[in-house]
Amino acid sequence: MSDDKRLFTPGPLTTSLSVKQAMLRDLGSRDGEFVDLVRGVRQRLQEIAGLGPEDGWESVIVQGSGTYGLEAVVSSLVPGSGGLLVLQNGAYGKRLVALGRRHGLRTEVLACAEDTPIDPAAVEARLSQDGGLTHVALVHCETTTGLMNPVEAVGRVVQRHGRTMLLDSMSAFGATPLDLRTAGVDVLVSSSNKCIEGVPGFAFVLARRRLLEAAEGQARTLSLDLCAQWRGLQADGMFRFTPPTHALLAFAQALDELAQEGGPTARARRYADNQRVLIRGLSALGFRSYLRPQVQGPIITTFHYPQHAAFRFDEFYRRLGARGFVIYPGKLSEAACFRIGSIGRLDGDDMRALVAAVAAVLAEMGVPSGA
Amino acid sequence: MSDDKRLFTPGPLTTSLSVKQAMLRDLGSRDGEFVDLVRGVRQRLQEIAGLGPEDGWESVIVQGSGTYGLEAVVSSLVPGSGGLLVLQNGAYGKRLVALGRRHGLRTEVLACAEDTPIDPAAVEARLSQDGGLTHVALVHCETTTGLMNPVEAVGRVVQRHGRTMLLDSMSAFGATPLDLRTAGVDVLVSSSNKCIEGVPGFAFVLARRRLLEAAEGQARTLSLDLCAQWRGLQADGMFRFTPPTHALLAFAQALDELAQEGGPTARARRYADNQRVLIRGLSALGFRSYLRPQVQGPIITTFHYPQHAAFRFDEFYRRLGARGFVIYPGKLSEAACFRIGSIGRLDGDDMRALVAAVAAVLAEMGVPSGA
Repeated sequence: MSDDKRLFTPGPLTTSLSVKQAMLRDLGSRDGEFVDLVRGVRQRLQEIAGLGPEDGWESVIVQGSGTYGLEAVVSSLVPGSGGLLVLQNGAYGKRLVALGRRHGLRTEVLACAEDTPIDPAAVEARLSQDGGLTHVALVHCETTTGLMNPVEAVGRVVQRHGRTMLLDSMSAFGATPLDLRTAGVDVLVSSSNKCIEGVPGFAFVLARRRLLEAAEGQARTLSLDLCAQWRGLQADGMFRFTPPTHALLAFAQALDELAQEGGPTARARRYADNQRVLIRGLSALGFRSYLRPQVQGPIITTFHYPQHAAFRFDEFYRRLGARGFVIYPGKLSEAACFRIGSIGRLDGDDMRALVAAVAAVLAEMGVPSGA
Repeated sequence: MSDDKRLFTPGPLTTSLSVKQAMLRDLGSRDGEFVDLVRGVRQRLQEIAGLGPEDGWESVIVQGSGTYGLEAVVSSLVPGSGGLLVLQNGAYGKRLVALGRRHGLRTEVLACAEDTPIDPAAVEARLSQDGGLTHVALVHCETTTGLMNPVEAVGRVVQRHGRTMLLDSMSAFGATPLDLRTAGVDVLVSSSNKCIEGVPGFAFVLARRRLLEAAEGQARTLSLDLCAQWRGLQADGMFRFTPPTHALLAFAQALDELAQEGGPTARARRYADNQRVLIRGLSALGFRSYLRPQVQGPIITTFHYPQHAAFRFDEFYRRLGARGFVIYPGKLSEAACFRIGSIGRLDGDDMRALVAAVAAVLAEMGVPSGA
């Protein structure tokens, strides 16, 4: 168990042993103990986002992956008469476009380069021109590159125009201090196996209650009907359909450990420290980061392939794996890159061990450091 | 951990400790070890259904609950020009109707009483009258009551009429010997936390390959696009969206343990033995089963409330819970009942302990045995 490879990926992550051990139980999904656990999880998710019971928000858990949570939002909250503007600078923005179109919604795209944050002024201009764009969707941390988009600045624009802002905060929530009372965001989606450091199994949605109420009966699917899911959880604390009880047990433990660490601010600091060790170490070996430091988030870092004929990513990946380190392939449209995550139960020692393994693997492959 | 309540429910179930311990690992969802594990699981699911590589079937895993798997099938495989006939004798049949209608499909219902199996002759008559009913959906074990529907007899009728038969085998698959080469079934759906005795987290679909090929591009959702999910798993063994890695680790272990027990036939025998102890014990205490023995499946048993003023289900449930036994409320439209499952990592001793607890609780409540 302890000899599992360490995961330097955007999730599923290396989680703590205690998070995994929380799954050594079987709870009845309609029994009181589980109902209480779910209620506590939903409340704590709001607290992480700065929300109290008076703020008019709701927390809804959706079985499945993060994309299921996004689809629940898009297919339940955006009316057929509405229009969705997706702010796109990576693969996850493209996925939001695909979601809107799959449900027959008018879906417009405001795109910029993958190494460039969304420009709030461009959003301003687009919304001024087009009153039919009722909803705006933004990816918080674009896991394609690791870029952080300017949520609050975009949120202010969207709010000023009276539109609804949907935030895909999949790989940011929990390690990016964010106050939903003031961020200009109306709906946030994230998932169990990212910065909260739980195991995969569900997405969660934080949404203004009035949006859920207004969208009643509008959902285009049964499983991903966000309003019905919320109503079910409100009514008796139970899920409409079987929940991943073990993933929720792990998540409750992960929330405890997040609080013990000092909350999102402390976690963000650890991830940033991890990343600093990583970038410094890989730079010394000659790797170049894809993003400028000003737009680089602390979650995941994209590195260019070394420009040397002996470098082949598959072999690099395999050799690192043999040493116990799992990294992540690239997902860029225009550059040959790989990615390394700095999230999960990892610290500076883990990052240093990874850097040492990268150095050793380059030597094995005959790729000179600094190539 | 070992002092957790025992679950006498239709799932999530009491699983073995070794199944849960299989989750004490973190695998990368795109790493080779996990890809191999998923490939093995998909193959073993086919083998349980009597299918070999030559038979032209595919096995697709869908993140989420069992209902997600059913929605993936209905919303991906039934064309807009088609018609869905749901054979309905319980709440899960009604859910299939809701799924068809949510996706705007012409959805017809052939219903019978909740204590009566679907009559193949009635299906025959309906299909003869209505050539527009391209798909027929049946619930294998109606968990509402525990009734077993006659899959093979209905399957023969549907096959003779050249229609496509969809089987919701959620709470039957793995403990009900079924040979998909001859059953007249074209698509089967079940989930991880039923008779295979894994933990909740995903559904799985066994479908004829030609149906998946024919339905390409037809799916009405992105997350539940069964064809795209299959293509993704075929291409490189990876999921399109984050899979529940821990639930899959548990499931692989659960499949090992199913094989060790002797496969679905042996497991069906244990469940039937469990149920025999249960029914005998509760009958001796005066409880009446809702179903006639001829139509009763071995998965879950429905009992009428005792007809005594001192019996209140909530108190009965709570007092059994305090003694470490979780039972299940009823779901019938026309009778006051509760349910007790005989599946999961339970044996005759567990059932005898439950019967003794029921006797003790009745005494505490002042409900005479035999009331």
